[in-house]
Amino acid sequence: METQIFELSYALDTFYFLVSGAFVMWMAAGFSMLEAGLVRSKNTTEILTKNVALFAVSCTLYLLIGYAIMYPELGQSLLSGITGDGVNDDKTYAPSADFFFQVVFVATAMSIVSGAVAERMKLMAFLAFAVVMTGFIYPMEGYWTWGEGSVFGLYALADLGFSDFAGSGIVHMAGAAAALSGVLFLGPRAGKYDANGRPRAIPGANLPLATLGMFILWMGWFGFNGGSVLATASVESANKVAVVFVNTNAAAAGGLIAALLTARLLFGKADLTMTLNGALAGLVTITAEATTPTPALATLFGAMGGVLVVFSVVLLDKLRLDDPVGAISVHGAAGLLGLLLVPLTNGEVKLSGQIIGALTIFGWVFVSSSVVWFLLKKTIGIRVTAEQEYEGVDLSECGMEAYPEFTNS
Amino acid sequence: METQIFELSYALDTFYFLVSGAFVMWMAAGFSMLEAGLVRSKNTTEILTKNVALFAVSCTLYLLIGYAIMYPELGQSLLSGITGDGVNDDKTYAPSADFFFQVVFVATAMSIVSGAVAERMKLMAFLAFAVVMTGFIYPMEGYWTWGEGSVFGLYALADLGFSDFAGSGIVHMAGAAAALSGVLFLGPRAGKYDANGRPRAIPGANLPLATLGMFILWMGWFGFNGGSVLATASVESANKVAVVFVNTNAAAAGGLIAALLTARLLFGKADLTMTLNGALAGLVTITAEATTPTPALATLFGAMGGVLVVFSVVLLDKLRLDDPVGAISVHGAAGLLGLLLVPLTNGEVKLSGQIIGALTIFGWVFVSSSVVWFLLKKTIGIRVTAEQEYEGVDLSECGMEAYPEFTNS
Amino acid sequence: METQIFELSYALDTFYFLVSGAFVMWMAAGFSMLEAGLVRSKNTTEILTKNVALFAVSCTLYLLIGYAIMYPELGQSLLSGITGDGVNDDKTYAPSADFFFQVVFVATAMSIVSGAVAERMKLMAFLAFAVVMTGFIYPMEGYWTWGEGSVFGLYALADLGFSDFAGSGIVHMAGAAAALSGVLFLGPRAGKYDANGRPRAIPGANLPLATLGMFILWMGWFGFNGGSVLATASVESANKVAVVFVNTNAAAAGGLIAALLTARLLFGKADLTMTLNGALAGLVTITAEATTPTPALATLFGAMGGVLVVFSVVLLDKLRLDDPVGAISVHGAAGLLGLLLVPLTNGEVKLSGQIIGALTIFGWVFVSSSVVWFLLKKTIGIRVTAEQEYEGVDLSECGMEAYPEFTNS
Repeated sequence: METQIFELSYALDTFYFLVSGAFVMWMAAGFSMLEAGLVRSKNTTEILTKNVALFAVSCTLYLLIGYAIMYPELGQSLLSGITGDGVNDDKTYAPSADFFFQVVFVATAMSIVSGAVAERMKLMAFLAFAVVMTGFIYPMEGYWTWGEGSVFGLYALADLGFSDFAGSGIVHMAGAAAALSGVLFLGPRAGKYDANGRPRAIPGANLPLATLGMFILWMGWFGFNGGSVLATASVESANKVAVVFVNTNAAAAGGLIAALLTARLLFGKADLTMTLNGALAGLVTITAEATTPTPALATLFGAMGGVLVVFSVVLLDKLRLDDPVGAISVHGAAGLLGLLLVPLTNGEVKLSGQIIGALTIFGWVFVSSSVVWFLLKKTIGIRVTAEQEYEGVDLSECGMEAYPEFTNS
Repeated sequence: METQIFELSYALDTFYFLVSGAFVMWMAAGFSMLEAGLVRSKNTTEILTKNVALFAVSCTLYLLIGYAIMYPELGQSLLSGITGDGVNDDKTYAPSADFFFQVVFVATAMSIVSGAVAERMKLMAFLAFAVVMTGFIYPMEGYWTWGEGSVFGLYALADLGFSDFAGSGIVHMAGAAAALSGVLFLGPRAGKYDANGRPRAIPGANLPLATLGMFILWMGWFGFNGGSVLATASVESANKVAVVFVNTNAAAAGGLIAALLTARLLFGKADLTMTLNGALAGLVTITAEATTPTPALATLFGAMGGVLVVFSVVLLDKLRLDDPVGAISVHGAAGLLGLLLVPLTNGEVKLSGQIIGALTIFGWVFVSSSVVWFLLKKTIGIRVTAEQEYEGVDLSECGMEAYPEFTNS
Repeated sequence: METQIFELSYALDTFYFLVSGAFVMWMAAGFSMLEAGLVRSKNTTEILTKNVALFAVSCTLYLLIGYAIMYPELGQSLLSGITGDGVNDDKTYAPSADFFFQVVFVATAMSIVSGAVAERMKLMAFLAFAVVMTGFIYPMEGYWTWGEGSVFGLYALADLGFSDFAGSGIVHMAGAAAALSGVLFLGPRAGKYDANGRPRAIPGANLPLATLGMFILWMGWFGFNGGSVLATASVESANKVAVVFVNTNAAAAGGLIAALLTARLLFGKADLTMTLNGALAGLVTITAEATTPTPALATLFGAMGGVLVVFSVVLLDKLRLDDPVGAISVHGAAGLLGLLLVPLTNGEVKLSGQIIGALTIFGWVFVSSSVVWFLLKKTIGIRVTAEQEYEGVDLSECGMEAYPEFTNS
């Protein structure tokens, strides 16, 4: 009977992982809709193609290489383990469920990049970057953090009081670091800055789509954060998962309201795009530690993320860092904020550890990404021609328009 | 070992609540898409902004105030309880999971309002109403019903044989009552009635979006009704949850087919908008009691809702009650129908109790909402100017178009 | 205490079925968005109406007739059983949950048909076909396979070494067979072939919608395949469900990448439509057997489906079989491929059994569908008039445009 109870617990934790993972997989649709809504119609087919393809590339590369880098022990038993041929006695859930939950996180990190480099990057260069990012760059920093490995044999983040619950830094800021590097190598879109260097607004073509994307991401985040408790089959872990759901929701709400009000004060209007990014920034902020804050504090932390993202978007525009969807602000600025807030509610975490962790993740991803972008630029090239950019990359890259019957051209 | 079994049961019920709650949260996306698809393109950004903001406002206000009004006992232990710091011995699932499941219901009630007042109401007035509705009006009637409190100390609905399983009245008709009051204070959209007072059809701008919204709501309703069994970790409750899923699905199907055929008989065409509203009306109808009907009867009850909604939409149009998306008919008329049908299959429920309950909910929400709308009208104003309405509220309220490259203007 | 453990196991399996079923229901939205995105705007309202109505018809007909045909034993206790009035001792999960999981599969089979006959078929003829398909044709072949009945008393597929895990053949190829028959009776769309008989591309109106549809289907497939293990409350079954999730995801990724690369080699562009269909083909392929392949092999099998679908689409176009969304290729060609691949990884399955099974399913559905299409053609007619087709079926069938403010007409 002890065995039966163990089996039930194993089954419940496995099912919880799989449902959580399916919710995270769903975030790929969220990023796709968000980005497709925020770019111009002439670049929509291409951003969709990038998004669906990066998800498939992430899943395949992490399966073949990345998982073994990030979790060397699991990686050794990869092929037998994740097909469930054998059940190790020390497992409390299906090994394949662990892989499934991990693999969808990789895709999330990669999805962040596609938005920032939208409307001007070559499709195949982007996918080549995705191969390296999801097969090597992300798994390396994942190994140093969740994989509990030491950073080049020099130091171990776990020993320094570093903690990143569901990946404000490991997933979101990492994606933003790769994106920032890409944006620096690419330069801004044609027409983004006027003759005096002042940024011009380039409105997205389909705001309902962007709103849908935000809602999908919000929903998927329950899996992203909720699943990161890593167990649910006991009173203690069930309580924790429930707290995570409440805090995740509260932080998104706080971020949304804060960004709405901030944008209204600054610009005089209820800026929907900023509002959507505020909710996402709230979600990113709470992701570093969703178990310890009270719901009221989670709302406040989310609101801080929501305010930050508005100023970050304005600042990046001034710095001529052209990020069409605000991904670097949402995932980078709010991701860093999230990491730095953890010590306020989690006594086991040190601010110094968080800073060293953030520098390690950002430094590694930014530098290694820059090497890859540089090599791609020197070989196959990363930017479409000026003419292709003017005509829209949909025609040059994909040979089809996203809305052939609608646009006023 | 007894403890381990309790822990598993606790964990399963908690997980069931959280998954159900995530499905209900998803309904916010459904309402957003439905409403964004059924308004004109010039008012789309604003209805999206209202929908995302009302969800955030609902979550925050119910967290800070509403939950403690609706469930005074739980509210006392709110801050410690819902963070899971302590587990009361009498709890069979995580307190935070209960809060999470409750909070998304509040947002549902509020989402109903936004559609009915679309295309002419000021954004900030609407959000101010949302604050009162989700922090006070809804929690009060929620306290009288699910909270088992007495109505102003006068009578207790539970003693009168009132029952509303998942909220045909408590959530849906309540939202419709607030919406109806808002519509009365606002008046119809410019151009809705011709010189002779006859209603004109104002087609929605994006029917795929509206269809997507209906599907999202249908899916989310499995959480809305399925979670309302409040437990699943036994044979009896698991059977009940399964019956609820089947009946919810059957009623939606019945409502859809009935509305499709009714509209075809009346108008000669397969009216997609009516068909979508028919499915939703079927869902609202079965929500008052989804456990006792057979699936065939659930189909029939749903079909009754589907027929009713078509006639209700036509009637409201004649009465010059301009509800752009049909929310009052879907949630109000079908919500009332659902309440009145309960005694047919549930012997413990009295028709008189249902009538008194319906009057109590409707009366309270309608009157208190009217006070709020009145005060808002006298202070900040609730309707945009005629010029803003003509130009579209997207520009005046949000400063951006939803589809800047598409419209034929 | 033994009883309590049984109850928990029963409850977990039931919840797993219900969540899986809700994911499969969600696939109806996926088909709707995919098809609405791939047709022209003038036929969008109608394809949406078909999709929502076919789901409702499927649910109702399978409830009233189909389930009893497919599972005679369960059908006998249908009304009492699925309302959960009685729990048979031999049940390990709620009878209603079984019905719910089954009913959404029927709708999937029917959804496949609507895409192939889009843009030219009468709405009411289509719905009449749906009644027969979901009430009789599908349940018959379902009875021969999952229902373990004998084919007209002649032979039993189970005895011949036939196996179809989640329905590559039983659901997907069956839908494609009905679709192929419909396409033959209908003929191609006006303008699909030029004066020399060469196919012309007719671009879909809304590619973000089609992409969303693909993502919804991918997500829903976790329920489709994951739920088909039919149990999860033990270590063995939980491991199996987890493997199914991983393999399903891997096959979709493989199919997507393979179709993207194949189309790029053939046409020189990253064809988004082909890429989406590649992912779906990968999913269909793995559906015949998702438990035995390793993830790497699942990726490969998916990739084979992805390559096949590109060539199949090109071939059908040459054969003047006009399938606007590629449904016959995705679900028929890849469905057959999936069946034929099973013996490679599942030793209990025979290639001869798979071939006989495929012929049985295809033959039955194709012939019986042809009888129905023929009768419909001779009575109410199945094709709209040339003028209606030119104007778009939205106006003639539904009386409303999908995007009244957007199109450049």
